[in-house]
Amino acid sequence: MNFCSHCGQTVRFAIPEGDDRGRFLCDACGTIHYQNPRIVAGTLPVAGERILLCRRAIAPRKGYWTLPAGFMENGETTSEAAMRETREEACADVDLENLYTLINLPHIDQVYMIFRGALRGDYASGPESLEVALFEEAEIPWHELAFPTIERTLRHYFDDRRGGDYPLHVSDITAEDRERYLGSA
Amino acid sequence: MNFCSHCGQTVRFAIPEGDDRGRFLCDACGTIHYQNPRIVAGTLPVAGERILLCRRAIAPRKGYWTLPAGFMENGETTSEAAMRETREEACADVDLENLYTLINLPHIDQVYMIFRGALRGDYASGPESLEVALFEEAEIPWHELAFPTIERTLRHYFDDRRGGDYPLHVSDITAEDRERYLGSA
Repeated sequence: MNFCSHCGQTVRFAIPEGDDRGRFLCDACGTIHYQNPRIVAGTLPVAGERILLCRRAIAPRKGYWTLPAGFMENGETTSEAAMRETREEACADVDLENLYTLINLPHIDQVYMIFRGALRGDYASGPESLEVALFEEAEIPWHELAFPTIERTLRHYFDDRRGGDYPLHVSDITAEDRERYLGSA
Repeated sequence: MNFCSHCGQTVRFAIPEGDDRGRFLCDACGTIHYQNPRIVAGTLPVAGERILLCRRAIAPRKGYWTLPAGFMENGETTSEAAMRETREEACADVDLENLYTLINLPHIDQVYMIFRGALRGDYASGPESLEVALFEEAEIPWHELAFPTIERTLRHYFDDRRGGDYPLHVSDITAEDRERYLGSA
């Protein structure tokens, strides 16, 4: 951020009075520009014994497999965001069951929220996917998954499926976790 | 948003190519300025039979009672945000138990996430609170609560306490719900 989005003057980065962290400040109009984490909402679409995955057609991690997920937009709920992303990336509808993983990535200012649900009807590649396919547990391309959040969600799911109970899993991924993961792929 | 925060030129609001919703666009440098919902993280601090509430010293809803909660910051996890807000508003520490309510407010682009936890030690008014106090169920100031998210979280808690089970509650608050609530106070 270089300029004030309100008045167009140059901003500076400093701690505002009464605050305890740096913000972009505009001395011309007095606006404090707050920046906050973003939610990535998605689904874990289940079709019997199989899980739907999408192979990414876009950066980052083009060519790697992911669950359908993306940035939540203004004006929608977390469930709506998850369903919209599933329609966009996999041309698929999902009957949502529960919020299944909530994963904090504080080093990149993201919070993943993946909802478990039943795939309803057909699917196809959306513009952001090279292909979309269903995988049994033994077929999951573990070494070609796009992000550590996706691997973690799938591992929880297959573990939980043995017991038939799918509680919410809340966890964090650190910068080191992510580097180790992306470095190994 | 009037000006590009990257290059300082005037922005326009239009649907980018390949997108399906309006964004602020900079024709000078090509930046698309995305805007996304914010997370409000907080706690439901439990001390035996009583709940800690804070009376707000700042707008909006100055003078009304709330659970300690506020905007999640970059670089932190949802739990860290909830605990930081509790320290700031109530000078209190909480041993978090579980994510208890997740409430979408799509008309104001917010997602509330309230964690249930045990109050540990003392408490006092922080700079954003006029007073901080513990309330039994019969003492809750239902008509002087700051926000519908707070009322809903407290109602879930007292209902669940009768059964001793505290599952995550996911729900939405619409513009109409909120207007009805704030209009009635």
